Amino acid sequence: MSGCIMETICSRGRGLRLAKQHDIEQVAGNGLLDRRLFLLRSSGLVSAVGAATGLAATSARAEPLTVAEWTKTPGSWFTPYGMPSHFEAKVARGAIPASPYGGFGPGSVRAPLQFLDGMITPNGLHFERSHNGVPDIDPEQHKLLIHGLVRQPLTFTREALLRYPMTSRISFVECAGNSGALYGANAAEGTAQSLHGLLSCAEWTGVPLSTLLDDAGIDPAAKWLVAEGADAASMSRSIPLAKAMDDAMVALFQNGEAVRPSNGYPMRLLVPGWQGNMNVKWLHRIKLVREPVMAKDETSRYSLLLKGGKAAMFKFQMDAKSVITKPSPGIGMRGPGLYEISGLAWSGNGKIAKVEVSADGGKSWAPAALSEPVLSKALTRFRIPWRWNGGPAVLQSRAIDDTGYVQPTREQQIAARGSRAQYHCNLITSWQVAESGEVKHVYA
Amino acid sequence: MSGCIMETICSRGRGLRLAKQHDIEQVAGNGLLDRRLFLLRSSGLVSAVGAATGLAATSARAEPLTVAEWTKTPGSWFTPYGMPSHFEAKVARGAIPASPYGGFGPGSVRAPLQFLDGMITPNGLHFERSHNGVPDIDPEQHKLLIHGLVRQPLTFTREALLRYPMTSRISFVECAGNSGALYGANAAEGTAQSLHGLLSCAEWTGVPLSTLLDDAGIDPAAKWLVAEGADAASMSRSIPLAKAMDDAMVALFQNGEAVRPSNGYPMRLLVPGWQGNMNVKWLHRIKLVREPVMAKDETSRYSLLLKGGKAAMFKFQMDAKSVITKPSPGIGMRGPGLYEISGLAWSGNGKIAKVEVSADGGKSWAPAALSEPVLSKALTRFRIPWRWNGGPAVLQSRAIDDTGYVQPTREQQIAARGSRAQYHCNLITSWQVAESGEVKHVYA
Repeated sequence: MSGCIMETICSRGRGLRLAKQHDIEQVAGNGLLDRRLFLLRSSGLVSAVGAATGLAATSARAEPLTVAEWTKTPGSWFTPYGMPSHFEAKVARGAIPASPYGGFGPGSVRAPLQFLDGMITPNGLHFERSHNGVPDIDPEQHKLLIHGLVRQPLTFTREALLRYPMTSRISFVECAGNSGALYGANAAEGTAQSLHGLLSCAEWTGVPLSTLLDDAGIDPAAKWLVAEGADAASMSRSIPLAKAMDDAMVALFQNGEAVRPSNGYPMRLLVPGWQGNMNVKWLHRIKLVREPVMAKDETSRYSLLLKGGKAAMFKFQMDAKSVITKPSPGIGMRGPGLYEISGLAWSGNGKIAKVEVSADGGKSWAPAALSEPVLSKALTRFRIPWRWNGGPAVLQSRAIDDTGYVQPTREQQIAARGSRAQYHCNLITSWQVAESGEVKHVYA
Repeated sequence: MSGCIMETICSRGRGLRLAKQHDIEQVAGNGLLDRRLFLLRSSGLVSAVGAATGLAATSARAEPLTVAEWTKTPGSWFTPYGMPSHFEAKVARGAIPASPYGGFGPGSVRAPLQFLDGMITPNGLHFERSHNGVPDIDPEQHKLLIHGLVRQPLTFTREALLRYPMTSRISFVECAGNSGALYGANAAEGTAQSLHGLLSCAEWTGVPLSTLLDDAGIDPAAKWLVAEGADAASMSRSIPLAKAMDDAMVALFQNGEAVRPSNGYPMRLLVPGWQGNMNVKWLHRIKLVREPVMAKDETSRYSLLLKGGKAAMFKFQMDAKSVITKPSPGIGMRGPGLYEISGLAWSGNGKIAKVEVSADGGKSWAPAALSEPVLSKALTRFRIPWRWNGGPAVLQSRAIDDTGYVQPTREQQIAARGSRAQYHCNLITSWQVAESGEVKHVYA
């Protein structure tokens, strides 16, 4: 049961009986250790080594039992709907931006990725992007119209939809503009939240859009649809009918409860893996059409600029991407020793097949462990142990999805797209760890 | 693209062009239809039939486009932490019970299962059971002590634990007393929430307990541990060491964010699949011992009484169980036609292998579709289409897990346990559907 795996910690032992250093090979440069080290207790690897981390030697000396104040008095009574502890106030959707027009207009707030763990984003922290605020919709009054190139136009209330056969899936939603700062000439200061927080993941439940379109009867001339929201911006997007029939959903539930107002209450479109604003919130109209309508929300914004003054028409899928959330700016190191590097990976084109991590700025890579379940078009949590020697390091992660696509370096992405791109930035992020333990965003 | 699958709806067609009745065989008595009907669009079954549900004929005539009030004015600005729509106020953790002592003491509130869909319970609606209220714990002050039969007692702060390698799993927690009313001589009035709502499911993330115990060094004499909470009841339970080393976790995160105060902030024990109160909340002490300590919370309560004045010592696992949430009391029918029957199934012993549904009080059964991912010791959503002919019906579901265990009938469970049992009630629930569409709990 004894056994210490780290020289660095062995050498700092504080009264613990520490076994001799076992021969754990690094799996990549600058201290990356085998991903299976702590994950498979019953594996040969762990049993050969002894499973003790040695972490306790650095921080966990036993203290006498005391009775805390909160144990001496009865706690609080029940509430109909719970909230986080007031001690977690910093875990919030970032600084609320100034409204350009005094309380309304377009804007966004971001999920605090560096304070979260697991794959699910709690509903209260799901990122928000809206083009003219969050409408206060009465679900008894709201209606969804399906019309255009259909045999029979139909109007659905929420109550009518609740009778339909439902489907559930855990799916990420990512704004096309997420991480756009990384196209910039200089590495932006920021955190996982401020740089990459237009990203969240929830279990969505609703009616397959294909079922509703089949009920309306699709005219063979229809190849696209226009989805429109009931917000004051009438946000609308053109979506290929093939995607609508494949895996799109009119979502009524988000992590079990009704979709939140900021996420489209009482119903939103879910277009798994495609850019965020195609997942039209406050959905009230779907019109089947022959070709894309070039709505303001797909031309004035959300076009991917390329080299030579051209733009991609269209680029919908969010390609494979990853980001390390721990450590990350604001979530630094506290002295040399063993740490877990943890982060999120996702692909709009399928499942994450592999995440590789580097601690030496991309010179060498080691595979991270992926937390189950690994689901198509969902966030996937990855983890790898790291023995930090206290010296400088640059941490990177790269995602590979089951199509074989590999997340590009910054150099590769800029070379392919030029310097005017704004959207679909999925290049590899670099976090530089200083000897002080502080972490900051760099280009490397 | 046309096609109507239901005589009942065809006969009520309101101006839609309705195709002739296709020969969809019922798969069990009283209108249960093939589970694959709407789930696998590309299957031979659906393409042979045409995928239209015909549901639109009953409720969804197109209405002219109008512009809602909330589309005419800008919506509300951003919030740091979101909440559900005020229109969802009824979706709450039930009536708050009267405190027996004026604001404190033991009690519980239940998850509103009939208003939820999917497998995840949102954190604000996770059921609560506490023995002396919810302590307001400062995470900077809180400590976890591991002592007793260990080589080296250790004390962990939350910050120290955050450095450890983490693991995530989606897991249900169910109070041992859930559904206890169904042992009663007469069928209790109630809803899915009031009868079965001491049940929830979340993604939990934390440190494997085995890692911490290995760091402390386990004395070979240790066979059990006692886990104690920092609440004013000092809730404590004895847990076999083998379970602790298998899959127990010191959970720090719940659906991505810090565990909620009502669920154990800043840390709780997760003992997947075992009765709720062994998942000790506000965890502050683990003592390794030779044998169970017979704590008040495992003797005065939570013992499973059997026939002849005996009690089971011990019964920890929550055996396979299921409940239909839609329709259910309060969530009734609105006229004959096609409906989806949907519910939850779970097992503390592994994965759900199959859920069967009956619409004729158990005379005939048909397999439901299971929503992916189907995970060990997690809630699993099941669904099956049902053509209600408007006559009386009794709906039941029974879960079968991957050990082969079959959820028992009420008769079987009472025969096995006698009439004094209070805990671990997992018998088959019967919902009676009246011709009016109302649904109520019955024994059948």
